Amino acid sequence: MSDKILIIGTGAIGGFYGALLARSGAEVSVVCRSDYETVSRQGFQIDSHALGRWRFQPAQVLRRAHDYKDCADYLILCSKVVADIDRVNLIRAGLSDKTAIAFIQNGVDIEAELLAAFPDRVLISGLAYICCNRLAPGHIRHLAYGKLTIGALTPDDAGLSERLRDLFIAGGGDCEISHDIIASRWQKCVWNAPFNPLSVLSGGLATQAILQNQENFVREVMEEVCRIAAACDHPLADDTVDINLERTRNMPAYKTSMLLDFEQGRPIETEAILGNAIRAAQRHRIECPRLQSLYALMQLRELQIHENRPPD
Amino acid sequence: MSDKILIIGTGAIGGFYGALLARSGAEVSVVCRSDYETVSRQGFQIDSHALGRWRFQPAQVLRRAHDYKDCADYLILCSKVVADIDRVNLIRAGLSDKTAIAFIQNGVDIEAELLAAFPDRVLISGLAYICCNRLAPGHIRHLAYGKLTIGALTPDDAGLSERLRDLFIAGGGDCEISHDIIASRWQKCVWNAPFNPLSVLSGGLATQAILQNQENFVREVMEEVCRIAAACDHPLADDTVDINLERTRNMPAYKTSMLLDFEQGRPIETEAILGNAIRAAQRHRIECPRLQSLYALMQLRELQIHENRPPD
Repeated sequence: MSDKILIIGTGAIGGFYGALLARSGAEVSVVCRSDYETVSRQGFQIDSHALGRWRFQPAQVLRRAHDYKDCADYLILCSKVVADIDRVNLIRAGLSDKTAIAFIQNGVDIEAELLAAFPDRVLISGLAYICCNRLAPGHIRHLAYGKLTIGALTPDDAGLSERLRDLFIAGGGDCEISHDIIASRWQKCVWNAPFNPLSVLSGGLATQAILQNQENFVREVMEEVCRIAAACDHPLADDTVDINLERTRNMPAYKTSMLLDFEQGRPIETEAILGNAIRAAQRHRIECPRLQSLYALMQLRELQIHENRPPD
Repeated sequence: MSDKILIIGTGAIGGFYGALLARSGAEVSVVCRSDYETVSRQGFQIDSHALGRWRFQPAQVLRRAHDYKDCADYLILCSKVVADIDRVNLIRAGLSDKTAIAFIQNGVDIEAELLAAFPDRVLISGLAYICCNRLAPGHIRHLAYGKLTIGALTPDDAGLSERLRDLFIAGGGDCEISHDIIASRWQKCVWNAPFNPLSVLSGGLATQAILQNQENFVREVMEEVCRIAAACDHPLADDTVDINLERTRNMPAYKTSMLLDFEQGRPIETEAILGNAIRAAQRHRIECPRLQSLYALMQLRELQIHENRPPD
């Protein structure tokens, strides 16, 4: 019998990885909010630089997890981590007795509320290393990369992480198990912490232009993140910054997901990425003035947008 | 015989202080570029919160200093300090044998090229502490404050600084002599270094909103400037930061001049304010990561604007 998977949140990440799982033979259903009409009518169009173009038609397309008419083996949360999304309630509504929970999300220190809410579940933390955009409702473009890194935060005696990895690989994806997924999360933050805010604060520059003009500053921001990770007992490899810079140099010019969210007036993950990193630094008395500068500026930028938004 | 004064650069600063000097009885002429048509036809309209409304009709309105048909006692440069304005040539074209040179401009470390070009002149460095905007060609609004601080950079045996101060005061202004005008310049940078870039990078917030939401960050940026000034042997008073914060709290909500320039597509003084401060820090091996963050971001923001500007 095929694995049953419920994806919550179908932006670029949820749509793309859901489509991979469906290619593996799993029975994939999705909870969409804004894209519900389009996706329920015609599914997802995936344009992948590596895997070609195909259409992904979910088993069930739902407005809310409560309406799911089955028992999922895996519930995979792919929403953003922002104040007005209640992750615990989103997940709870889609669980049956046997469901393992996974989340593919950005940010550091985002696990605590899920561990507290679901202490007896297998809880799998996931990170997507991918250039992938949602072009329109139900239309997702995969530009480069795509590796998933996942790791269980709770005991996983039945090997549910490995099983999920195997499904992603069977669908044509690249997925590996991390035995220190917290460190992996810091490692991803090394890239996100400079490029996400710089893309917004520069007024919309792509990663290439940022790197070509301010490599030194990007490097220093990355080094601050590495120092915080080390202070949190998750030291990163010595070449982490160099590898990140090199990888970005070889990437296609890319508008970050934070920039796209910002341009489209959607909530952005300033707190999950910058705020949480800075709070971790403060707990360990680590200086991070460049991150604090970016954080202060993002807060002002969002305040300005908020002040100029027409009332609902 | 009344003093003859040639003002070069008639934005908010040149227009307002030129108008004060004319009120003192001096014969004030102006060199305008973009506002030439309006000013030659109808002079300047000044709307001052403190001095009321009046019209200032210059003795001569010129497109370039070369056309000045007189011998100025003072030439006062009020242009911005930006790469595409050649200050030395602007000044040279308006000098006669006896002309003293003054400049009312922002930025630190901006004296060297003028000292090198005019070693035998009386050279007076000036700073305007004023909230003042150019609303339209020839129309200047004075919102708050207005004090000028001036000081001679070269020997001034004839007391030309004092004479210029007296003219400003006779015109209804507030002007004082600084005996360390270099320190005064750093002191002004304490305010400009945070508020100018933050107003631009936030997307257009006024000073009040910036201060209310990011006072801590503003304070830290100011403290970096104070440390650089001290390393340059121009230490500022211990209460400089507190006084600047307090003064800003009591100011009307104010769009900085850098923000107005930016919004109107005019060149901005990133190098004179941030770039020069950071280069001074580097010479003295002072850390200034917040200034460097603002500088990196301003360069990216300007790059983005430049890339998106339609070709001439």
